[in-house]
Amino acid sequence: MSSSYGKNIRITIFGQSHSEGIGVCIEGLPAGIEIDIEELQRFLDRRAPGKNAYSTKRREPDMPEFLSGMANGITCGAPLTAVIRNTDIRSSDYSELFDVPRPAHADFTAHVKYGGAQDVRGGGHFSGRLTAPLCIAGGICLQLLKRHGIEIAAHISSIGNVSDAHFDMVNVTEEDFFALRENDFPVIDFASGQKMKEVIEEARATGDSVGGVVECAAIGLSAGLGDPMFDGMENRIAGIVFGIPAVKGIEFGNGFGSALLKGSENNDAFYTDGSGIHTKTNNHGGILGGITSGMPLVFRAAFKPTPSIATTQDSVSLSKMENVKLSIKGRHDPCIVPRAVPCVEAAAAIAICDAIFENNKIRGV
Amino acid sequence: MSSSYGKNIRITIFGQSHSEGIGVCIEGLPAGIEIDIEELQRFLDRRAPGKNAYSTKRREPDMPEFLSGMANGITCGAPLTAVIRNTDIRSSDYSELFDVPRPAHADFTAHVKYGGAQDVRGGGHFSGRLTAPLCIAGGICLQLLKRHGIEIAAHISSIGNVSDAHFDMVNVTEEDFFALRENDFPVIDFASGQKMKEVIEEARATGDSVGGVVECAAIGLSAGLGDPMFDGMENRIAGIVFGIPAVKGIEFGNGFGSALLKGSENNDAFYTDGSGIHTKTNNHGGILGGITSGMPLVFRAAFKPTPSIATTQDSVSLSKMENVKLSIKGRHDPCIVPRAVPCVEAAAAIAICDAIFENNKIRGV
Amino acid sequence: MSSSYGKNIRITIFGQSHSEGIGVCIEGLPAGIEIDIEELQRFLDRRAPGKNAYSTKRREPDMPEFLSGMANGITCGAPLTAVIRNTDIRSSDYSELFDVPRPAHADFTAHVKYGGAQDVRGGGHFSGRLTAPLCIAGGICLQLLKRHGIEIAAHISSIGNVSDAHFDMVNVTEEDFFALRENDFPVIDFASGQKMKEVIEEARATGDSVGGVVECAAIGLSAGLGDPMFDGMENRIAGIVFGIPAVKGIEFGNGFGSALLKGSENNDAFYTDGSGIHTKTNNHGGILGGITSGMPLVFRAAFKPTPSIATTQDSVSLSKMENVKLSIKGRHDPCIVPRAVPCVEAAAAIAICDAIFENNKIRGV
Amino acid sequence: MSSSYGKNIRITIFGQSHSEGIGVCIEGLPAGIEIDIEELQRFLDRRAPGKNAYSTKRREPDMPEFLSGMANGITCGAPLTAVIRNTDIRSSDYSELFDVPRPAHADFTAHVKYGGAQDVRGGGHFSGRLTAPLCIAGGICLQLLKRHGIEIAAHISSIGNVSDAHFDMVNVTEEDFFALRENDFPVIDFASGQKMKEVIEEARATGDSVGGVVECAAIGLSAGLGDPMFDGMENRIAGIVFGIPAVKGIEFGNGFGSALLKGSENNDAFYTDGSGIHTKTNNHGGILGGITSGMPLVFRAAFKPTPSIATTQDSVSLSKMENVKLSIKGRHDPCIVPRAVPCVEAAAAIAICDAIFENNKIRGV
Repeated sequence: MSSSYGKNIRITIFGQSHSEGIGVCIEGLPAGIEIDIEELQRFLDRRAPGKNAYSTKRREPDMPEFLSGMANGITCGAPLTAVIRNTDIRSSDYSELFDVPRPAHADFTAHVKYGGAQDVRGGGHFSGRLTAPLCIAGGICLQLLKRHGIEIAAHISSIGNVSDAHFDMVNVTEEDFFALRENDFPVIDFASGQKMKEVIEEARATGDSVGGVVECAAIGLSAGLGDPMFDGMENRIAGIVFGIPAVKGIEFGNGFGSALLKGSENNDAFYTDGSGIHTKTNNHGGILGGITSGMPLVFRAAFKPTPSIATTQDSVSLSKMENVKLSIKGRHDPCIVPRAVPCVEAAAAIAICDAIFENNKIRGV
Repeated sequence: MSSSYGKNIRITIFGQSHSEGIGVCIEGLPAGIEIDIEELQRFLDRRAPGKNAYSTKRREPDMPEFLSGMANGITCGAPLTAVIRNTDIRSSDYSELFDVPRPAHADFTAHVKYGGAQDVRGGGHFSGRLTAPLCIAGGICLQLLKRHGIEIAAHISSIGNVSDAHFDMVNVTEEDFFALRENDFPVIDFASGQKMKEVIEEARATGDSVGGVVECAAIGLSAGLGDPMFDGMENRIAGIVFGIPAVKGIEFGNGFGSALLKGSENNDAFYTDGSGIHTKTNNHGGILGGITSGMPLVFRAAFKPTPSIATTQDSVSLSKMENVKLSIKGRHDPCIVPRAVPCVEAAAAIAICDAIFENNKIRGV
Repeated sequence: MSSSYGKNIRITIFGQSHSEGIGVCIEGLPAGIEIDIEELQRFLDRRAPGKNAYSTKRREPDMPEFLSGMANGITCGAPLTAVIRNTDIRSSDYSELFDVPRPAHADFTAHVKYGGAQDVRGGGHFSGRLTAPLCIAGGICLQLLKRHGIEIAAHISSIGNVSDAHFDMVNVTEEDFFALRENDFPVIDFASGQKMKEVIEEARATGDSVGGVVECAAIGLSAGLGDPMFDGMENRIAGIVFGIPAVKGIEFGNGFGSALLKGSENNDAFYTDGSGIHTKTNNHGGILGGITSGMPLVFRAAFKPTPSIATTQDSVSLSKMENVKLSIKGRHDPCIVPRAVPCVEAAAAIAICDAIFENNKIRGV
Repeated sequence: MSSSYGKNIRITIFGQSHSEGIGVCIEGLPAGIEIDIEELQRFLDRRAPGKNAYSTKRREPDMPEFLSGMANGITCGAPLTAVIRNTDIRSSDYSELFDVPRPAHADFTAHVKYGGAQDVRGGGHFSGRLTAPLCIAGGICLQLLKRHGIEIAAHISSIGNVSDAHFDMVNVTEEDFFALRENDFPVIDFASGQKMKEVIEEARATGDSVGGVVECAAIGLSAGLGDPMFDGMENRIAGIVFGIPAVKGIEFGNGFGSALLKGSENNDAFYTDGSGIHTKTNNHGGILGGITSGMPLVFRAAFKPTPSIATTQDSVSLSKMENVKLSIKGRHDPCIVPRAVPCVEAAAAIAICDAIFENNKIRGV
């Protein structure tokens, strides 16, 4: 199986790029929650294509219809299902794709796994389009978290070899987040953002694509969320973030950087200001032993470059078992990283909600 | 909850560093499998402490007793439970630890989560000692996989800023693996290994510790294992590898490196040699769309430096809510990375077994 | 949470009686399965209301739309989602219901659980209408099972105190099943069926309702399906059958009858006819130790009488906390048992598919 | 898989009748709970064999050793594992059993499922002995529930055709429970109990066995526990009770009896006494729509007669595929129902704890 996540709030994502619809079923939402549909739509718009010069020209409205789970605009305790119709489901010209897998796409592995029955149109269930229902679920979780003082935001940490500034892992604030959300190319350092846009534009001009990194932070988390071993916050977050297509790596706090350090450099000293306990540095990224420390939770996800490029590539005809050349037609995002920013926020929000509900189980028992 | 992993083969790990025993219960093992106990013990010995100059001097036999799940030396279909007794369970001198959390350890977060009821002795359930039952389960899975032509091995990819050579991601072979397993300090490049040992020795001499990276490869996997979205091979492997204490990052194939590249550089071209379909390069690390491609599966896990260091550190007295100095007594591993190598192999083996069983479900239906 | 079932094939049912739509998401279906939509529709029609004189007059087409999971009419390996629109979703006159819970309905318990946010219209997520998506999933599983020689059928075992003949637990055949499926009031003994109809008609005439029992059998099952302890066939089937509204009891084989017997009477002797191993009697209902024996799997589910009756009943005003009288308006099924027959078949089919996939996991490993 | 139960508190039961040990691992227990070991032992003693004239003469101490999950006598948040050693693990004389399956036992179905690798000694993992770890987990849950005002008790409802009085489903009290727990043959009506003992004694004298029914009630439950559809209280309780060997049926409230009634007879009218809302009758057994109503939760489980009887029975030689006669040697319980009483209480306690933790998840969110 495949497309469900969560033990306490469970999302099940369905649909293919060119099926009748895509959507998500969310189980475990508390009853009585008013969902701000307009705010949700604004969140969804952040990942929508065609929004700016840096993504594909195709426009889809991507307005979810709520089939179930609400009464009078508030959650009713029953599973909430939201569906987005696929309006453009032409399936005319996928015969070549069916026979010749695109490099770095799931075409070949899906072919083997499903014995040729997979839905090849537009990448099927493997399409980046399936991040739209992820964002519906995540957008709802973000609203839920916000009411409890928890905020999550992400920014483009790098595109190719151009890097943004990092979050201040000790002091990242809600104000930093506001600025990012208002920015349709969310970076901390405006000048770096300009250089990133040039890198993307260059990739587009040459029919190429480029990868990047998204950095995400959550603030307002109380200490004590997450569990030891396999349900730690790292496991939980990695378990959903790798569900976003093109993610090939994840690191928490100092991450791979901590592997270069000595304990005396990497350990975060505790201190108290009388009211609470904090750490002076935050190399641990807000997680110790899988459990939140109350410091900002910070992680980074690496995205490989978009596989679809204009350059002719080497591939194989599956039917003839012979080597062939493949040219991929159509316009594609030269860089999916900007649109991935809200997807990473959504994934983090779902994972954190799930951990909070887990923690609540034995409250006051 | 916390300490179970897997949907098809499920391992449940229990125990604390100083409880009566630690162990693992494995559900879902096929019946009729002969477990080579001696081979398993050799595997367990690879993570045992005190084996060489690079780890703590303490010696524990760590021989598992099998309480259930076997009859006449073969698996019988019932849950298999193996237990290792904790022979040294003195709990005399943990009062300071209970009050003053060690930086970068789980002491503080466990204190908050469990309201002071956590078992502080030796790190409790958060201790690295709990990787012994992980290795029991993983060692059994490795034997199972080997009979089906699947081999897994890992090496020390870096210690501090000294790096080993990388696996040849396209052509890594069983012979490469044999060499690593015979090496009690498993590196590909012997000279790099010598430098790493110096780095560790220097850390020990200064009462400090150092982090590193483990690189792991699995070969012999057929294409088609793993699932889209949240049960992809990346999700599955990350979900267990982050259960090893001190892991702060994971990347697959080219990982964070792919974020620096263009699509034309990172895409792996397909080709056929008549009999099968392969890729010319392996930046995808054997996984496309969450599903194995038949190429070697390669990933890297980043380990932070051991938190326990001799240097006096800043911390807090939880009872008095005031800032205090903490000196950690006793001998500790200056670097856990060498001992983590078999743990990473074990984790990968369990995740891969689980994916294979998943795939079998609908075979021939 | 609530509305998901299955570990290997997982169904998630969503919707409320008067929400925009109801439906089911099915994960884990094999790819490449052609679903016979017409056969599925015939199956769904068996539970549809208004079909005959013995159920409500309201007519709904209940034709599912497939949003995902298929390409060119066959399953593609991605989650399959089917939706039925609720065409009649007036929500005008539920204010009394919201305040005064109907006896034997879930109104009161849902009110407490969801703090007044539950969807009261038509029973919300607790409505018998939610058995339509159960039947979609079950109908697909029935087709899958049939291709592997497994057939499932059920009949009305009793209505009030009028009983049908029982299945011949040793020799029930496919022919017996054909006869039942062609009968829109499925009984084995036609004369008993006539008396049952009279009992129902009498209940209707007096504004009352009546309960009954459904007996279900599955044939063609190989021995070895199901697992010990908590994943036995009884656990699996009970776990889904109690999801059908109004079920208050379930028994397997001789069930409660076996509690009256001695071992010498209840034990089923084994014998071989040279080719296979069978039992002379089938008091065990095809399940021993939770695992199928290869004999027909037989169980019975008890349905309480429909709670909605015309008679004025005692209840409570939740807002005023005072005792009030309640008259339920509208037409209701005087007996849901006839329409429950395909629901029980559907539930059994899903549980059996799940057990088969479980068993496949370790096939040939 | 097989031997785990629960989503919020999860128990995993391991062991075979003649393996080194049997036990249970419990995940999800709150930290900080003091377990009264003596009270737990008294509870375990209620199911121990050899306690009175009505069970086998064999005596086992069945004292659990706690390997993990506690520190200083209280739960520490880590998985709790308790083990009972099998002191008598002779495996000399099971060769006949291996070849000739005992009627009504799992010998044959386990043989098919595990391909001959199953542990046949004493019934292996299918042995009633595995209810000892169930009772460890259940005994701990009972202590937890008791501290929150929830009490659970069961009695022998019938043996063969001799019936005890029923619980007063509306007014069953803690006092009724005390009386049952002090009775080593727990019945409500002493005279009926005497007759039951005669029925058991007669079965023993003739080398036969006899079945029976256990009725269980839980009081002090608040309304609102349990979930719609597949996580209803009926599903949850049935899902664990069928894990007790020999259970062939379960019913809630009026159960199969409600199938005989009219709605006007079976519906339970609501009323308020000013402070709370109750029902005048309790045919619903404290569960409506899968959710507790606050009325006593009452269910009954049917146990088939012990399969092991002295009489020679017909069976099959698996190796020769020919019909043979089987005589089972050794002493066996002529009736397991008295010893099953605490097992049913244990199962109910675990299911109810799991539902409470589920309900807590979204408390105050």
